[in-house]
Amino acid sequence: MKKAVCILSGGMDSTLSSFIAKNSGFELVALHFNYGQRTQDKELQSFREICEFLNISAKYEIDIPFFKTIGVSALTDENIDVPIDGVKPGVPVTYVPFRNGIFLSIATAVAEKEGAEAIYIGVVEEDSSGYPDCRDEFIESMTGSINLGTKDETKLQIITPLVHMTKGQIVVKALELDVPLELTWSCYKNSLKACGVCDSCRLRLKGFEEAGQKDKIPYEDNK
Amino acid sequence: MKKAVCILSGGMDSTLSSFIAKNSGFELVALHFNYGQRTQDKELQSFREICEFLNISAKYEIDIPFFKTIGVSALTDENIDVPIDGVKPGVPVTYVPFRNGIFLSIATAVAEKEGAEAIYIGVVEEDSSGYPDCRDEFIESMTGSINLGTKDETKLQIITPLVHMTKGQIVVKALELDVPLELTWSCYKNSLKACGVCDSCRLRLKGFEEAGQKDKIPYEDNK
Repeated sequence: MKKAVCILSGGMDSTLSSFIAKNSGFELVALHFNYGQRTQDKELQSFREICEFLNISAKYEIDIPFFKTIGVSALTDENIDVPIDGVKPGVPVTYVPFRNGIFLSIATAVAEKEGAEAIYIGVVEEDSSGYPDCRDEFIESMTGSINLGTKDETKLQIITPLVHMTKGQIVVKALELDVPLELTWSCYKNSLKACGVCDSCRLRLKGFEEAGQKDKIPYEDNK
Repeated sequence: MKKAVCILSGGMDSTLSSFIAKNSGFELVALHFNYGQRTQDKELQSFREICEFLNISAKYEIDIPFFKTIGVSALTDENIDVPIDGVKPGVPVTYVPFRNGIFLSIATAVAEKEGAEAIYIGVVEEDSSGYPDCRDEFIESMTGSINLGTKDETKLQIITPLVHMTKGQIVVKALELDVPLELTWSCYKNSLKACGVCDSCRLRLKGFEEAGQKDKIPYEDNK
């Protein structure tokens, strides 16, 4: 059975991406990163619950705490506030330098070890926070790079099933595939209930609204 | 003053590469990786001594122990012997999956934080162990990828001053620039003296021989 390494944060997008990989006939190798982000514990919990739901036994939980040393992002530096006043054009302060480049590079090493032929990543280009490492153009270039930098017999494709979807389409597709969205965590803040006002919550709620559905996770202030 | 991130393992090649960066007028940001390799302590000691020699204050010592989890390389898995019977064609068992891809991705994050405009890496293509992530073609592709995956204002070049040099040329150039080669560590084994027979020792010794020079570091059996 052909294998795919699925980068799985435990959020809505990466979870749907992993379900799509499974539906495409891949045996899944799940890859999660603890990178010192505010919501590290929440995301890890979601990751584990989704792996259990999908019956994935090949799991990598990789610690890369150096992102906290690098800082400069509201997600990894507690001194920088997470913006709550709406998604703006441009690269926001929640951008973590070259995060997906690093994730994809590590996924490549895992894929080469596992003999996988694909890496799934749930990046969204247009309907997103505007991170440069979520662009289709970057992913295409990176696919070339990882194939040049690995053994000749290693042939990898990076599959981004969500890259040109809207958040509404993502919710619709997730519900169609019976993805347990109530297990996923999107909020940038580390609280018991989702804040509802950070960019990630706003994008998620927009998706549910566009899909005409109700999000089942608890939000602060009954959002 | 323009800044360069120098990937510096503490070996001969990365040390010369950093000296060349300094001679090219860059302010150096030194980047070292502890990746669970056998010679982690030796390399870290060399890194620190070379940083002191070069008077570098901007230093990153990054722990990425996951390479040990991934394993499959003689450098990170103690159950796989380091070959000592000579450099062979093909990719050897000391190959660490996509190591330079991961190093360059992390270097990109550091460079973006530091506002650097170059990354120096001491890869050697022809006269080397045959690692795919040391090829010029890979580095060129990766340069495109990192610029597509970072902020638009981030413009990075990856500089590989040694990529087409022979080991002999590397030793000659290093002595010309007064590089303290006695501080560097190349051996793949973690012993007090260099083994003289692993691929890395063999390549280093070949370099000294071609240059008509004597290596000042101690070798086992008076090699």
